[in-house]
Amino acid sequence: MLNYSPLIDRLIEALRCLPGVGPKSAQRIAFHLLERNRAGARRLAAALKEAVETVRNCERCRNFSDAPLCRVCASAKRDASLLCVVESPTDIGLIEQAGGYSGRYFVLMGRLSPLDGIGPDDLGMEKLTDLLNTGEVTEVILATSTTVEGQATAHYLTELIQGRGIRVSRLAQGIPLGGELEFVDSGTLAHAISSRRQQ
Amino acid sequence: MLNYSPLIDRLIEALRCLPGVGPKSAQRIAFHLLERNRAGARRLAAALKEAVETVRNCERCRNFSDAPLCRVCASAKRDASLLCVVESPTDIGLIEQAGGYSGRYFVLMGRLSPLDGIGPDDLGMEKLTDLLNTGEVTEVILATSTTVEGQATAHYLTELIQGRGIRVSRLAQGIPLGGELEFVDSGTLAHAISSRRQQ
Repeated sequence: MLNYSPLIDRLIEALRCLPGVGPKSAQRIAFHLLERNRAGARRLAAALKEAVETVRNCERCRNFSDAPLCRVCASAKRDASLLCVVESPTDIGLIEQAGGYSGRYFVLMGRLSPLDGIGPDDLGMEKLTDLLNTGEVTEVILATSTTVEGQATAHYLTELIQGRGIRVSRLAQGIPLGGELEFVDSGTLAHAISSRRQQ
Repeated sequence: MLNYSPLIDRLIEALRCLPGVGPKSAQRIAFHLLERNRAGARRLAAALKEAVETVRNCERCRNFSDAPLCRVCASAKRDASLLCVVESPTDIGLIEQAGGYSGRYFVLMGRLSPLDGIGPDDLGMEKLTDLLNTGEVTEVILATSTTVEGQATAHYLTELIQGRGIRVSRLAQGIPLGGELEFVDSGTLAHAISSRRQQ
């Protein structure tokens, strides 16, 4: 690749920190911003700098927050006896959007994955144990994904929590709403049959 | 979408200035940077800010540059009698990489597109005319794309330049190197036949 100018080269290199952006896309993005959207680029630079400097993890649930406690943990309206364990902050957004849940959250910021070197310590187990030790929580809902790692994480958490006299539940698995049987994979279908509910 | 925190919302919104990034990707990118690559995000913020503030257009050829003249225009080794007109700075990179060209460039930063409101004034025609008026240039190579707009731009430029006693040429069109005939579209094939060269 031609060296354009030290500044442009540095911008192209820096853009590669974005997920899925290789050298060609980085160059395309850099030129797009310089040619057509300098105001947007300026805004992005300021927003990035401020977010990186200010956003931290909530002291109680590890969700992103710019205050010591995140909005959910700081709210007096949430039920402190219910704790929903999720893999990432995105999941909180999805569950809030779905409605019907009024408890608090705990964000693992990942899932157990020995191959990637992610063990219990990386998922904030110490903080979770502290939270359970307060005695406020009476039910933990495991909302980790249904991937192999997510299931393993749920299994690990179940073992950790069950001895404490706290109820542990897992999100129901089965046919999605509006799903035609022919488009559902056989693993899900087998699960839906074995977990059938009496009407 | 859930409001995460004012700062994260602002970052997600700002990330949408990147080409092809919608609300979902913006959120994914924001979380990726905050969770896994704060150092990269910091570098990107600094590079963006500096590039936006410092990178301008070369006074002679309109290419991006951090000095008044870009590297090609400032070089004493380039042939000032040859001028290659391209649509974007990326094209200069490709032509330099291909080798075999030792003249200077002129960057249109776009192509004629009346539907998008892009006319001759947006393509720096005044600057190009000034450049041709110096009398240095004896041949202009039109390297605009072979899209409809690129061809229209080349046609417009040909009309503009031809009256001045300056030779105008266009990049050759035909079968790409290593191209099998069956994978070449019929428009290109027809062009290759009518432009056939005697051996």
